[in-house]
Parts: sequence; C-alpha cells; structure tokens
Amino acid sequence: MPTPIASLDTPAALIDVPRMQRNIQRMQQRMDSLGVRLRPHIKTSKCLPVIEAQLAAGASGVTVSTLKEAEHCFTQGIRDVFYAVAIAPGKLAQALALRRNGCDLSILTDSVRGAQAIVAFAQQHDERFDVWIEIDCDGHRSGLAAEDPALIDVASVLSSGGMRLRGVMTHAGSSYELDTLEALQALAEQERDLCVCAAQSIRAAGLACPEVSIGSTPTALSALNLDGVTEVRAGVYVFFDLVMHNIGVCRADELALSVLTTVIGHQPDKGWIITDAGWMAMSRDRGTQRQRQDFGYGQVCTEAGDWIDGALVTGANQEHGIITLGAANNDEIAARFPIGSRLRILPNHACATGAQFPDYHALDADGAVHTWSRLHGW
Amino acid sequence: MPTPIASLDTPAALIDVPRMQRNIQRMQQRMDSLGVRLRPHIKTSKCLPVIEAQLAAGASGVTVSTLKEAEHCFTQGIRDVFYAVAIAPGKLAQALALRRNGCDLSILTDSVRGAQAIVAFAQQHDERFDVWIEIDCDGHRSGLAAEDPALIDVASVLSSGGMRLRGVMTHAGSSYELDTLEALQALAEQERDLCVCAAQSIRAAGLACPEVSIGSTPTALSALNLDGVTEVRAGVYVFFDLVMHNIGVCRADELALSVLTTVIGHQPDKGWIITDAGWMAMSRDRGTQRQRQDFGYGQVCTEAGDWIDGALVTGANQEHGIITLGAANNDEIAARFPIGSRLRILPNHACATGAQFPDYHALDADGAVHTWSRLHGW
Repeated sequence: MPTPIASLDTPAALIDVPRMQRNIQRMQQRMDSLGVRLRPHIKTSKCLPVIEAQLAAGASGVTVSTLKEAEHCFTQGIRDVFYAVAIAPGKLAQALALRRNGCDLSILTDSVRGAQAIVAFAQQHDERFDVWIEIDCDGHRSGLAAEDPALIDVASVLSSGGMRLRGVMTHAGSSYELDTLEALQALAEQERDLCVCAAQSIRAAGLACPEVSIGSTPTALSALNLDGVTEVRAGVYVFFDLVMHNIGVCRADELALSVLTTVIGHQPDKGWIITDAGWMAMSRDRGTQRQRQDFGYGQVCTEAGDWIDGALVTGANQEHGIITLGAANNDEIAARFPIGSRLRILPNHACATGAQFPDYHALDADGAVHTWSRLHGW
Repeated sequence: MPTPIASLDTPAALIDVPRMQRNIQRMQQRMDSLGVRLRPHIKTSKCLPVIEAQLAAGASGVTVSTLKEAEHCFTQGIRDVFYAVAIAPGKLAQALALRRNGCDLSILTDSVRGAQAIVAFAQQHDERFDVWIEIDCDGHRSGLAAEDPALIDVASVLSSGGMRLRGVMTHAGSSYELDTLEALQALAEQERDLCVCAAQSIRAAGLACPEVSIGSTPTALSALNLDGVTEVRAGVYVFFDLVMHNIGVCRADELALSVLTTVIGHQPDKGWIITDAGWMAMSRDRGTQRQRQDFGYGQVCTEAGDWIDGALVTGANQEHGIITLGAANNDEIAARFPIGSRLRILPNHACATGAQFPDYHALDADGAVHTWSRLHGW
C-alpha cells in the first residue's frame, strides 16, 4: 500500500510541518524575548493553515503584500492587517471597502503626493485611514530617509487631513546581501536606529507616532536589541530557503519547503538526470547566484529529504529540470536514479517557488499529507 | 468615463490582440509555405481563446507541457494533443484515462527504460499508446542522439510491445543562445537534418516512423527548407518577448504581451520610479541577462505601449518594481511619472510572465478589454 507521499503527482510543493512549526516557534520566542510583537509577512506562504499556525504561536496580526491577501485573511476572521506596500491611489477604494466591512486594515505611504491622495480620498468618503510612513534604512528600495525633512511634511499632511498616523516602518532588504553575523547585527542595529529616529523626529514635531515597525528575516534573527521598536515583520523564516541558508540564519535541517519531482530521463555522458521539475516548478529565482554558494535552481535531496552532497539543479526549462551530481561519480546514474524514482529539491527562494503552485502538500511527522491551497494573482 | 484599460487593477497581464493575430498569421503562413503542419505549443499561453485563434488560423492539434493542459484542451473539444515531455511512469494512468475518454493523446520517451515502462503499463491495460521518440539535436537537454544505437532499441521495444510509433521529435532549444540569421539558419538545418536522419535510421531498421516533428520559435522562423519534416512545434511566437527580440526573430512592434503597472513612489536622488509590478508580476526570468541587450526585468513603455528608450525595470522585489530611466535625464521624474500614473512593461520571457497571472486582459483594436483565464499548476 503506498504511503501518502508516494501517491502525489509531481511536481508538488511539500511543507515539512514539524520544521515549519519549529521555525515559527523560533521566531516567536525571539521576538517575545526582545519584547516586541511579531506581525508575520504572509506573502511567503499565502496559505491559511500556515498563517493560523503563526497566529496560534503568538503573532499579532499579519502583514500582506497585496489587497487580495488582505481580503483573504479578513474573510477568514483575521482583522488586524497591514498592507505594507505604498498604496496606489487606484487601490484606495478596495482598501475602504475592507475597512467598511470591519477589517482593521492599515496602509502605507512614503511621499507627500501619496499622503495627499490618501487624505483626498478619505475626506471624499468620510473615512479615517490608519496610515504608516515608510522609512528607507538601507537604500535598497522605497521609503523616506529618516532625516529627510519630507518625513515631517508627510506626517503633517496625514495628521492635519484627519488620518490616524500609526507609526513608521522600514524593511532592511539589503540584509539579503550579507553573510556574516557581524554585518547582520550591524544592519539590524541600523534598521532599528533609523526607524526609531524617524519616529522621534515626528514626535518632536508634535505629532503622534505610536508605532515603530521593522523587519526582515535576517535582521530579525540577528538583532541584539530592539529598543524603541514595537513590532517586527518577517516572512520567509516560516519556511526558510537556500538564500537564507547562505546568509547564515538557518541550518539545512530547518528548510521546510521542497519540491517533489520524478526522474524522467538521463544524459549519462554528461552526468545529467532529467526531472519533471523545471522552472515552472522551481521558479526562475536564482537568488543564490551571487551568494557564497550558488545552488543553481536548487539543492537535490532524496525523496526522504536527505541532502545529496554536490547534486544541484544546474539547468531548468519550463517543465524539465537538469540535475548534475557534481564532483560525485557520475557512473551508473541511470541505475542509481532510475526513471520513475523521486527526489526532493530545496529552492533558492521559498516565496517565489511557492507562488508557482496552487497548493502545498503538508507532511505531518506521521507521514500524513494534507492539501493546503494558496492564493494566486492579485 | 474611463476607458476599459483605465478600469483595470494593476498589475495586469495585457495581450495586444491585433499583434497576437498577426504573429499567429505570420507563423502559420510560413509553415504553410514550407509545406509542414503547425502544432503550436500552448505552454506559452495556457489560454483557450489564444489556442482557438491558433487553430482557426490553420494549426493541426496542439503541443502541451503538462497533462493538465491536455485535459483542459480535450475538455474544450481539442482532440489531437501531443504531450511533449518524456512521460514519467506515474503519469501513464492519467494519459490512459484521457485516451479512454476519446482524446487522441500522444506521448514521448527517449530511453529503453521509458519505453519498457510504457509497454508494460499499456499491456497491463490492453492499450496501444501513440508514442514519439525524442531526439537530441543540439545537446541542450533530453533526447537520444540521432546516431545513438539505442534509438533503434527504443523503437523496437515500442513496436514489438504493440505501441504505435508516431515518429521522432526534437527541439533546438539552444537557438535561444543565438542572435544572427546565419547561426539560426545553420541550427535550423541541423535540427531538420538530425531529426530526419533519426527517422531514416528507424525506417532502415524496418520499423514504421511516419512523422518528423521539430521546432522552436527561432528555428521555425529561420529554416530555409523543411524537407522530410511533417510538423513544427513552436510556442512563444504567439506573443514574442524581449528574448526573442534579442535573438532577432521579431520586431518591437510584434511584442504582444505586456504588464500594466502603477507608479507608487520615487527615489528622485537615484532616478528611480517604484511601481507595483515586482517579480511576482514579471517573474524572476532574466533571460536577456546574457544576450546582446540586458533588459533587466523588462522594457518600460507608456500606458499606451510606446517604448520609452533606456527605461528598464532594473530591480524587482516581490511586489515592487524599480525602474531606472538610464541615460535619459532623471530630473522631474516625479512630475513626469506621478504616483498613480501607469506604465506598461514588456517582459523578458512571455511563458514565465504569463504564468504569474490567473488571467490575461485581452485588448482589441477598438480598446475593448476581455478577461481570458489561464491554467495554473499541474
């Protein structure tokens, strides 16, 4: 009689539930010990049972990357939702509808023009939005510099326009480029310090700024103190991935997401194993390309999940993966990995790989498999 | 009153229908003039109205990359389906079910072991599968070399096992690495010649091998003759993309797929425009990275579709795109591209970008917008 995993069609996205639960506990306990709330970023999983496990462990509300995620969470009874992308004016009507239905949705801006658009829409609809201001702590993307005078202008536009200024937020996305504890600790301190300074500037201008929200998985797991911070947002820690492993914030046995694949052929002269997990399954993410170890499109493991040293997905077409065994002996690969045998691939980037699948297959410690659907699109 | 395109939420995947129709006509007319059938690869669009347009223009059947695509096509009345990935033994039951329901599904193998698995399953279920043998014409992935003695072994296993050997097929995937007409013509001839030679070897061994199927968009558009070939498979020509543009097989005004996005912020000091089309919308595909022109994550156009010279998506986070205007003057970018304004991004790789969206929005010549759903997952 086949075990449940043996009955899965491939490619399939597997969640190792015990690992996921340990990852959730690890981050929650760290945030508890640092005295801050944890608001997980659900863009990684987009999957209700995962989010529910995070909330059950003590998380306070959720962070989302799309209003579709916000709607999904609210429909499932999660009211405290932070849409942490500077809102396009065209999405304000959708945000308003969520709030009118009872969702405690907060939104984000990083400019006077953005704040003016929020205020104009809110006044037109007699609404008082909860708004955060985005701070740029490392130059990697959006946000206002902590010392930018426009910060006070934005806060003033929001306050005088009748909005509730929730606080300031930042995301140290450049942490993905680091790989030493010292550098991560320094960036975590920079992230904390600049965001707290931004809040203090607003307060010094006589405006309320109750919250300071920071976060990225690498800095959240490296910060020595979070004085002045009220909440941390982090996402990928729930599954971890090879990028996080290269950064140094997780062990190999903490990687909770993998792709189950079937061997469909070989090129023995080249030492290649051909599988049915191409880039459509793994995603095109090559996040380890410029890191300390380039894992190609993923690290190859046995079906049971044991790491096969040196075996990488070195090429990917849409529905074909090419595995190279590397320095290991390529002899007899067709006998060792026959057509129809199965492997698991650890992905570079859990957020991108998960997004390729309509469902996860969640494996309990006892081997039972549950199908967990995930959101797709906007 | 807003035009239909103005009412779309962003990010959105737009199909320029007149361009798509011209692309379909161009390929169909070329195949007609070369005297071969066209069997479009629907992995690019995974979208019924697109497939129907290809069939209406004269295509003979479809090529699919997953059995889910095969099931979808068959449900919609398309019977002639070639699943052009070497079949995993675990998928034979699904293939059998399709055939038992009346689908003229053909399958693929490239090994004695694979052929034996097909025969064993077929004999167990009293079925006679239609089977193709995959030929490796350029060393880029799977298939048997045309001169490999195993080719006759595979054909013999299939024939003596009672299968219907449909023919040989190959895909010159290495054409994606070329960018001169001479090199493309040479590879197209190599693809044709090796696949025809493989068929002749099988015939010389006294076995029937009626069909010779080749194809990739670049070689299909470059071949000078297709003597001995019976059908061509090609996919991305229906939309084209920046990779194809770099290869030299399409003009800028033939790119039929784009992503509509909204400006959500700026970093004026860096000359950055921040949009809501990050890698979740564009995909992580960086297919132009090693080509003659690296387009980053995409070429930026106005909302109307006019190419903005030098403007590229130079960075992408999950829901944030970073546009750099390049050598153009960065002054006043916030005034020229204000928050809430819209742009269109041409993708590197239409197959990968399309896959990020549950639906396309198809724009007719008169500006009307239709929502066309597409398949996701396996």
